[in-house]
Amino acid sequence: MNQMDGMNYAPKGKPKPVVKEGEFVFSAAHLDHGHIYGMTNALLEAGGTLRYVYDPDEEKVARFLKTYPQAKAARSEEEVLGDPGAHMVAGAAVTSERGPFGLRVMDAGKDYFTDKAPFTTMEQLERARQKVKETGKKYMVYYSERLHVEGAVLAGYLVESGEIGKVISVTGFGPHRLGAAGRPAWFFEKERYGGILCDIGSHQIEQYLYYAGEKAAKVQLSRIGNYAHPQYPELEDFGDCAITGENGTTNYFRVDWFTPDGLRTWGDGRTFIVGTEGFIEIRKYIDLAGQETGGNHVYLVNGKGEKHLDATGVTGYPFFGALILDCLNRTENAMTQEHAFLAAQLCLEAEAQAVRV
Amino acid sequence: MNQMDGMNYAPKGKPKPVVKEGEFVFSAAHLDHGHIYGMTNALLEAGGTLRYVYDPDEEKVARFLKTYPQAKAARSEEEVLGDPGAHMVAGAAVTSERGPFGLRVMDAGKDYFTDKAPFTTMEQLERARQKVKETGKKYMVYYSERLHVEGAVLAGYLVESGEIGKVISVTGFGPHRLGAAGRPAWFFEKERYGGILCDIGSHQIEQYLYYAGEKAAKVQLSRIGNYAHPQYPELEDFGDCAITGENGTTNYFRVDWFTPDGLRTWGDGRTFIVGTEGFIEIRKYIDLAGQETGGNHVYLVNGKGEKHLDATGVTGYPFFGALILDCLNRTENAMTQEHAFLAAQLCLEAEAQAVRV
Repeated sequence: MNQMDGMNYAPKGKPKPVVKEGEFVFSAAHLDHGHIYGMTNALLEAGGTLRYVYDPDEEKVARFLKTYPQAKAARSEEEVLGDPGAHMVAGAAVTSERGPFGLRVMDAGKDYFTDKAPFTTMEQLERARQKVKETGKKYMVYYSERLHVEGAVLAGYLVESGEIGKVISVTGFGPHRLGAAGRPAWFFEKERYGGILCDIGSHQIEQYLYYAGEKAAKVQLSRIGNYAHPQYPELEDFGDCAITGENGTTNYFRVDWFTPDGLRTWGDGRTFIVGTEGFIEIRKYIDLAGQETGGNHVYLVNGKGEKHLDATGVTGYPFFGALILDCLNRTENAMTQEHAFLAAQLCLEAEAQAVRV
Repeated sequence: MNQMDGMNYAPKGKPKPVVKEGEFVFSAAHLDHGHIYGMTNALLEAGGTLRYVYDPDEEKVARFLKTYPQAKAARSEEEVLGDPGAHMVAGAAVTSERGPFGLRVMDAGKDYFTDKAPFTTMEQLERARQKVKETGKKYMVYYSERLHVEGAVLAGYLVESGEIGKVISVTGFGPHRLGAAGRPAWFFEKERYGGILCDIGSHQIEQYLYYAGEKAAKVQLSRIGNYAHPQYPELEDFGDCAITGENGTTNYFRVDWFTPDGLRTWGDGRTFIVGTEGFIEIRKYIDLAGQETGGNHVYLVNGKGEKHLDATGVTGYPFFGALILDCLNRTENAMTQEHAFLAAQLCLEAEAQAVRV
């Protein structure tokens, strides 16, 4: 894990293959966001076999091949999509291109696994919904701040096992370091990155729906602002949002690009889950001013007392193996298509109706 | 500090008198909420001289006299109000009675210091505003979760000294233990306690206005619910609220009555202050699963690094000495009247416009 840059956050876990070599084949195409490394690591650890890599930028391909020498550089997107042996194409395109690329992937008869946020417009989402219906293929999303964080995985187990009773409220903080110098131009163009609530907000909404078990929800308030970056007029350096689920659970989250240089990691991401019988706090990436730099600190408080659980190395990342099996067996155990789309829809709604502060 | 019951939270600090014996005289009347002990402790430590105590319930008076044997039991409220020597009357009446009692105190030519929340209706607030104008007296409020918490005081100093740049967002969690068996009947009657956003929400709003330096603000969303206490239909066991200040800062807070029995104190109160150059977290009453049971943990992160500051015994509670001097000198250094009223107004607005979840 690169401690200094959320963009290159690419956790490595223990190999836990769910299939044998060659049973599940995937390619990687469009490497605009560093998350493609986290996605590829996770699919490989779960037993996936990496075939092609493609990006119009040769430098990006060269870097990818250095990390994954087993991949073969494709000459075009068509070569990737035309490969009859691959089950899935993983991509981390510029955000506004993720939807259109996904349609091409599904049209080629493959499941699609995209970096978040999966869309920048409601129209893209609607087309993807339609294409999933038409083709029966999957449009899955790398909501890394839950799926690729062991503390978040452990919290899910604790909620599921009833440790805090019925969940009533989820609050999330998703601060990130800007590191403007290392960001590509599209990162600062709203039409291409989609806005802060769409971009890093998508993680937060997905987490809420998951922990609260909500299958429908409504954005009640959202705010965006640019407090301190006039040189990037289309950047939103702050956003927050309140959502109510159909079962009456509540969510609030705040995202920002204000992680100061003195923090030892890229962001002090937190999740707070309040239940009728207790609560959970996840300190995802760091314990402030603590002795060690690792994350995955889970605090559980209920009728039995207070517990600190260090989830590092404990849970692994079960999503990815489950995803591979879902693709092979046409099941929905890792994540339902509707859950992935609902999180996407709500982050688009949050962005669209945001009050500017 | 009683670790188990927020109702009896009555911090004791070091004496730091700002006046000599007899220079500032106060009485205590209406002892319905245990906060009167915190208020009395603080005024005594700041050099105040306690004269009368009054409550219609003799048991409450006897308990008070046991703690403060120097007080004299008054036979009636009139005896307290008629005392020509007292500068101030402190009270912790049933919430809905705090406004009307304040009018009588100011009419008697004394400053009033009430437990929070200071009002349950907008009409009470308007009458108090009017009476302050008429009499020139003060209607001050014991917003204890900032004024009587050294971690919160230290955070104020850090903000003021520019350690995190310009404040852009304040988030607060104010969970409390219900301890229903020890609560009086009025605690469960909405007309008398005012609702959760009015009651324990008032602390949160006051803190936001203070840390963000806002002098006007608008409630943008508020929610209330009763998730798990059907036996108390008028109890709101959950509330949250989002406010935007006129300078564009944002606030969100959540309050609830879900502190589980396993927590070693009455609530895991937190405040998170995000600035353009860093952020602060206050763990007010406990460090979860930590070695010690004390609170006042302040975490400061900015360009210089991460720091943990233990504020216990460091700052004291400067509000109370400043309040005494404000009363004697007719200044507003401890807190302006408008600030106290604005926090009250916003919590009434939050309660009035709350969406029920």
